[in-house]
Amino acid sequence: MKAGQLSSSIETMDTLSPTERTTIQRGRNRAVADRDALHRLLTDALVCHLGVVMPTHPVVLPTAFGFDPSGPDDGGSLYVHGSVAARWLSASPDAQLCVTVTLLDGLVAGRSAFHHSMNYRSAVIIGTGRLVDDEVEKQHALDLIVDHMIPGRAATLRPSTRKELAATAVIALPLVEASMKERAGGPGDEPEDVAAGTWGGHIPLTTVAGPVVPDQDARGDVPAEVSARADSLGAR
Amino acid sequence: MKAGQLSSSIETMDTLSPTERTTIQRGRNRAVADRDALHRLLTDALVCHLGVVMPTHPVVLPTAFGFDPSGPDDGGSLYVHGSVAARWLSASPDAQLCVTVTLLDGLVAGRSAFHHSMNYRSAVIIGTGRLVDDEVEKQHALDLIVDHMIPGRAATLRPSTRKELAATAVIALPLVEASMKERAGGPGDEPEDVAAGTWGGHIPLTTVAGPVVPDQDARGDVPAEVSARADSLGAR
Repeated sequence: MKAGQLSSSIETMDTLSPTERTTIQRGRNRAVADRDALHRLLTDALVCHLGVVMPTHPVVLPTAFGFDPSGPDDGGSLYVHGSVAARWLSASPDAQLCVTVTLLDGLVAGRSAFHHSMNYRSAVIIGTGRLVDDEVEKQHALDLIVDHMIPGRAATLRPSTRKELAATAVIALPLVEASMKERAGGPGDEPEDVAAGTWGGHIPLTTVAGPVVPDQDARGDVPAEVSARADSLGAR
Repeated sequence: MKAGQLSSSIETMDTLSPTERTTIQRGRNRAVADRDALHRLLTDALVCHLGVVMPTHPVVLPTAFGFDPSGPDDGGSLYVHGSVAARWLSASPDAQLCVTVTLLDGLVAGRSAFHHSMNYRSAVIIGTGRLVDDEVEKQHALDLIVDHMIPGRAATLRPSTRKELAATAVIALPLVEASMKERAGGPGDEPEDVAAGTWGGHIPLTTVAGPVVPDQDARGDVPAEVSARADSLGAR
């Protein structure tokens, strides 16, 4: 989906399957219902925010992720990982989770406080967490998470050790229950504020890479997949 | 806090006041305990992710915010706003909320899958939501949210109408129960992977503004506060 293009397509073959709790309530004109658009957003976003309900409160944590549209969960699988000792991870299997992915695309300077806004693409995915205990799927999920950060990187690395795998837990979330919202362009102001001559517009935002930084022990050229990732993020 | 500088200062006058649930459990070397650092992160971040517990599941939503270190809540006040008809807003007053703010600073290409990571600064704030019903505080909070996006903008706008104020709800969250994490620099690899000659390093990331886009009805120069905001975000 291009910036500025708001999809209102619903009930197509590629439609997301929102339930009551993921049906967009406010700002339906910002909802997109295209599974390809969800996959594009998940591809473009580098970090997600995972919500878990702890005994007394919700916790929202930023984390890396990967996803497989052909994964074993309904609608495909989104994967997050963490230390087996992390509290949020212990709370996630068989629990209701919410994973939200957001790309901020701009600040919208309206002609009134009310019409100030942000341009963004976001997806909210709700479902039951599944502890990935199959070794093959777990390794696949970890490769997906590495390759989500730097496509092609996983194949260049040594296999994970038994100790590393034992220290790491992977949680899968079905991609079936999802909703998306998108806002693009300038403000949607009141006609009287436009007539009054107040200025309105927006400031586009984008995340860009700086030059790759080899660490002090790195020898030789920057690997092709790392250079390519930096280039794809607009490294200057 | 500069990138690359990990604070381990705790128990100072400006220390955050984590409770058991906001005490960093994993990666304590990444915890920062400086209230000024929290305020800097909240100043630099444009969007937060708010977690609310709905009857059957958690919901995590991206939203704009503002904050007042001298606000009436313990530790100061963080403010979010939304439509009075939004479900998450109806669920927030007197409920446990989690607001997480994350800035992504880089992708870390380790010498193993296990040591791939991200550079980031994040804060997790947990507390009880308070519906802001005082008109003066509500207007102040809305000004803070606008000025958080574009500093100085609120003072240039007409006052909000009664109808706009009635359509908008503001929730305050105390800033007292908060924890921060930060990661910077290159990978923390295994010595044997370094010895094996595998390449390691990182790709810095930053969010930058593009040139300001006046909307089709905008007349005259871009206002100074909008230009200054774009400049502060590195507009090219």
